[in-house]
Amino acid sequence: MKVAIIFGSKSDTDIMKGAAKALKEFGVEYEAYILSAHRVPERLVEVINNADERGFECIIAGAGLAAHLPGVIASLTTLPVIGVPINAALNGLDSLLSIVQMPKSIPVATVGINNSYNAGMLAVQILALKYKELNEKLKVYRKNMKEKFIEESEKGAEF
Amino acid sequence: MKVAIIFGSKSDTDIMKGAAKALKEFGVEYEAYILSAHRVPERLVEVINNADERGFECIIAGAGLAAHLPGVIASLTTLPVIGVPINAALNGLDSLLSIVQMPKSIPVATVGINNSYNAGMLAVQILALKYKELNEKLKVYRKNMKEKFIEESEKGAEF
Amino acid sequence: MKVAIIFGSKSDTDIMKGAAKALKEFGVEYEAYILSAHRVPERLVEVINNADERGFECIIAGAGLAAHLPGVIASLTTLPVIGVPINAALNGLDSLLSIVQMPKSIPVATVGINNSYNAGMLAVQILALKYKELNEKLKVYRKNMKEKFIEESEKGAEF
Amino acid sequence: MKVAIIFGSKSDTDIMKGAAKALKEFGVEYEAYILSAHRVPERLVEVINNADERGFECIIAGAGLAAHLPGVIASLTTLPVIGVPINAALNGLDSLLSIVQMPKSIPVATVGINNSYNAGMLAVQILALKYKELNEKLKVYRKNMKEKFIEESEKGAEF
Amino acid sequence: MKVAIIFGSKSDTDIMKGAAKALKEFGVEYEAYILSAHRVPERLVEVINNADERGFECIIAGAGLAAHLPGVIASLTTLPVIGVPINAALNGLDSLLSIVQMPKSIPVATVGINNSYNAGMLAVQILALKYKELNEKLKVYRKNMKEKFIEESEKGAEF
Amino acid sequence: MKVAIIFGSKSDTDIMKGAAKALKEFGVEYEAYILSAHRVPERLVEVINNADERGFECIIAGAGLAAHLPGVIASLTTLPVIGVPINAALNGLDSLLSIVQMPKSIPVATVGINNSYNAGMLAVQILALKYKELNEKLKVYRKNMKEKFIEESEKGAEF
Amino acid sequence: MKVAIIFGSKSDTDIMKGAAKALKEFGVEYEAYILSAHRVPERLVEVINNADERGFECIIAGAGLAAHLPGVIASLTTLPVIGVPINAALNGLDSLLSIVQMPKSIPVATVGINNSYNAGMLAVQILALKYKELNEKLKVYRKNMKEKFIEESEKGAEF
Amino acid sequence: MKVAIIFGSKSDTDIMKGAAKALKEFGVEYEAYILSAHRVPERLVEVINNADERGFECIIAGAGLAAHLPGVIASLTTLPVIGVPINAALNGLDSLLSIVQMPKSIPVATVGINNSYNAGMLAVQILALKYKELNEKLKVYRKNMKEKFIEESEKGAEF
Repeated sequence: MKVAIIFGSKSDTDIMKGAAKALKEFGVEYEAYILSAHRVPERLVEVINNADERGFECIIAGAGLAAHLPGVIASLTTLPVIGVPINAALNGLDSLLSIVQMPKSIPVATVGINNSYNAGMLAVQILALKYKELNEKLKVYRKNMKEKFIEESEKGAEF
Repeated sequence: MKVAIIFGSKSDTDIMKGAAKALKEFGVEYEAYILSAHRVPERLVEVINNADERGFECIIAGAGLAAHLPGVIASLTTLPVIGVPINAALNGLDSLLSIVQMPKSIPVATVGINNSYNAGMLAVQILALKYKELNEKLKVYRKNMKEKFIEESEKGAEF
Repeated sequence: MKVAIIFGSKSDTDIMKGAAKALKEFGVEYEAYILSAHRVPERLVEVINNADERGFECIIAGAGLAAHLPGVIASLTTLPVIGVPINAALNGLDSLLSIVQMPKSIPVATVGINNSYNAGMLAVQILALKYKELNEKLKVYRKNMKEKFIEESEKGAEF
Repeated sequence: MKVAIIFGSKSDTDIMKGAAKALKEFGVEYEAYILSAHRVPERLVEVINNADERGFECIIAGAGLAAHLPGVIASLTTLPVIGVPINAALNGLDSLLSIVQMPKSIPVATVGINNSYNAGMLAVQILALKYKELNEKLKVYRKNMKEKFIEESEKGAEF
Repeated sequence: MKVAIIFGSKSDTDIMKGAAKALKEFGVEYEAYILSAHRVPERLVEVINNADERGFECIIAGAGLAAHLPGVIASLTTLPVIGVPINAALNGLDSLLSIVQMPKSIPVATVGINNSYNAGMLAVQILALKYKELNEKLKVYRKNMKEKFIEESEKGAEF
Repeated sequence: MKVAIIFGSKSDTDIMKGAAKALKEFGVEYEAYILSAHRVPERLVEVINNADERGFECIIAGAGLAAHLPGVIASLTTLPVIGVPINAALNGLDSLLSIVQMPKSIPVATVGINNSYNAGMLAVQILALKYKELNEKLKVYRKNMKEKFIEESEKGAEF
Repeated sequence: MKVAIIFGSKSDTDIMKGAAKALKEFGVEYEAYILSAHRVPERLVEVINNADERGFECIIAGAGLAAHLPGVIASLTTLPVIGVPINAALNGLDSLLSIVQMPKSIPVATVGINNSYNAGMLAVQILALKYKELNEKLKVYRKNMKEKFIEESEKGAEF
Repeated sequence: MKVAIIFGSKSDTDIMKGAAKALKEFGVEYEAYILSAHRVPERLVEVINNADERGFECIIAGAGLAAHLPGVIASLTTLPVIGVPINAALNGLDSLLSIVQMPKSIPVATVGINNSYNAGMLAVQILALKYKELNEKLKVYRKNMKEKFIEESEKGAEF
């Protein structure tokens, strides 16, 4: 039960750490890679080709601008690939469209702009199909989320 | 191994049948529902709450305009929810943003505008984590895709 | 004569307090709730279902990103629902489209991005149909608005 | 219990008739005017100034392009004004922004692009605060909407 | 030879002072008004109706958001009206579209977002048709602009 | 009293004839040129440099895509230049922004997308500062516009 | 002196043939390939890796949607890569941004949406640096373009 | 082997110095000019007309807003022109569209918003067709880029 978190530059670490945070909350192991579809494609290919061997069952990929990384990864594997559009220009619209508008047959499961936490959550929900213990944790997570929300809600809004 | 395909209006059938097509190609069972987050929320809740019982392991939801259906479903279940933005206005930009920009903790795995086939594919890739036979089929699918593409490629382009 | 102001997160308080301000200016009572279409839908349903009992005649709902809250509330009640798009990304365009582009039969009365004060004003104008004293106050408000504007106007612009 | 439907050109009739349709379904009287904020402002002023006398309690205004009509009407009255953005260029984005982004104090209750039916519905919901019989009709309407939807839903989707 | 500069709020003074600057450079008299199409329409009407009497030959109007002021002025006069879209939200796109997309017969001469200096320049160029001395000044202005530009150009760029 | 109408391709004739129509209605002479900022810049320069000699007092320029023609003309003359964005792609947004966002000092008076009729009207309004007879005609035009509008308005809308 | 024209699907042939047309006009040899960054990456790699051997000196790549092809090619070669955004959704905005917004160090020379003819022209202009005969042809081409334009221009516009 | 870097204002120096940086890394000589399509067109014409004489083989042009500079230069020369959209408003979308959407026959090789470094790189790649020593340097550059990337990559991401 391991997820790969892949992004193209050290400067994206802050945005992408949300994915790690979500996975940690559920005890899902992850490995983070700084890789690039454009700079070192062969290394990317190598990591993805050995995904099975390394035990990855889901891949999270974040990228900004003309964000090709998630789509290129998706073309190299049949594991589910989750794409995180990173806002580096145009409020992230360039990156969102570069990730979500994949052609027929090679989908990328796209989450919101800069919302890497949701990529982590989605990975957990996907893994939970196979790993029943995650299912239990997801139920607890949702229950806690509700309770915490209700608590905050009950304090009410103060204008 | 069953997927729910949910959308809000008969008129979306043409766009959404791509999802069914992809699932059929992999022998994944599906049930299609016309349901609505706004019109009959209680029925939607009922279907989603009984998703386990009905054997669903993944949910595909398509919607246009202020497309709330995928996000509302995602809030009712921890199964992976795949959202298909349907172009009904503004070239589908309204629908894309209404689906992909989900708040923290409740992701929707969003695919391209009108691209329900990719929603089906993504469902297959997700289910393949658990059902190894899909994995084999995905390998064959990709192999066939490549061969067919190469064949077309070899005919070359004629201007 | 009471209005519900509903939004999804404490962090939206600053944006939403404009609605309370407008209502206060007209002596319209309000209750503010932090509720969510996605996190605690059952609580939202409960509040909306008891809207009559609680004496609400109009509901103001603010949300950002894939802003489903106003539309989901509108589907649960036939009271007028006023939606406030909150800018949390993409300058608020995602939120505006997620609120205003509601499907046929279930409208949300949408105001400008971050403009919760106008949501409060609109609630007052709606309530004034029934509560004639508000009508008088609205006339005074407009008169004051004009006088204050004229005063400012008469000082003129200084370049 | 009467609504004014105002728009700027005969050519908008097709888009705007949805508002009339919704009002008719609820037995709400309406009068339709072709008026313009730019071409004959004095006539517009006259109609709006006599809104009370004419018995209007809500105003629906539709416009395309640089759509000033709803906002100008809103500045002339404290009745609730519902704005319908009409798509005449740029997929209606110009018109939507020209209507919804009203400055502080003078709101326009904006509905979706070309969605005049929802403007009619919103008018009914607003009037129902005062006219209890509309409340009953709204409950029946929603009930019918649900039943009809369920019926369609039960036929299911056919791919 | 006098120009009216009209805008809707003291807070727009900073953006609009560019128009005054350009007019001053050419010795064109101006009067600045804080007026509003929505807040005090009758005062606006009065100023515009007496434009002749006051000696105005051109009107510059700046506005943000749903920017109706320039278009409403244009409907009240046949003097050339120059519109300045002010960025108050959405990078000024709302304001630009609300000003430039005027319907047939009632144009607003629109300049760039926040570019009130160009509105002043355009007014000068328009007045120069009638006032030959402005023509001379415009030639000098362009000559100076070129010389100053060449000077800066000759210093060259330093990286 | 003569206006130059300039555009870059025979295929734009249909869009641009609105400008000629407006000018004809006011008896303003015009000459139409197919010229290009990119294809034959020297011819464009020649026409613009001799604008005085040819008797032009205002220039209307229409262009699509990366629409440089109006701005380039504006840099070659101090006559008022009116720009018409032509929709050739992206609903005309590319062309609108290429025309309206001119840098400081060299304005283009921009009208709505494809709205060349308004360019003609604006030219008439500009010329009317100098040619009083146009002023009279503008008053009659507005009067007729109103009467015609009122007539249409009085027939009312039929749903 | 040979150019590769690469695109991802037979259905793009019509859009891409403009590139071939431009190259033919200058007697530049080309080979057209249907290849894909996602479907058969290894074949793409092979063609690009042997670009030298095959004698390619410039590569034109067209793609729609999340258009990764030109950028992926650019990462595999240091030959100049010219990208053609193809309009398949959202008026081609998705494709334009996916191509032009390449990260630092790996540029794609992007031309206008669907404008493959300009990609061909740009290739010719690039090759002309090395092949002087193309320079001559470019001069003739521009001369002809001007003459033809002048001829059309002299017929004038007919409204 | 010399490149011209042209932009319209000293204030663009910071954005444009990336182009010089890239050229320096490859030992390609450059000259930088502050020139303008609108302010001093004749000087621009002069520089471009003497490009051969000055030894330029490629031109990089950066501009913001209604960015005409690269397109106007492209119309004056058959040398390859590389356009850099500079973000001065609307996140640079105005500038991008004003540069990339050039009409048929006169392409501008457009790079990403504010990405002048890539313009320098593209110039190097273009010149490398003729100057084989650049080819070697490009190979080394890519090799270094990879090694440096791998090094960074091997440190891994730290959350």
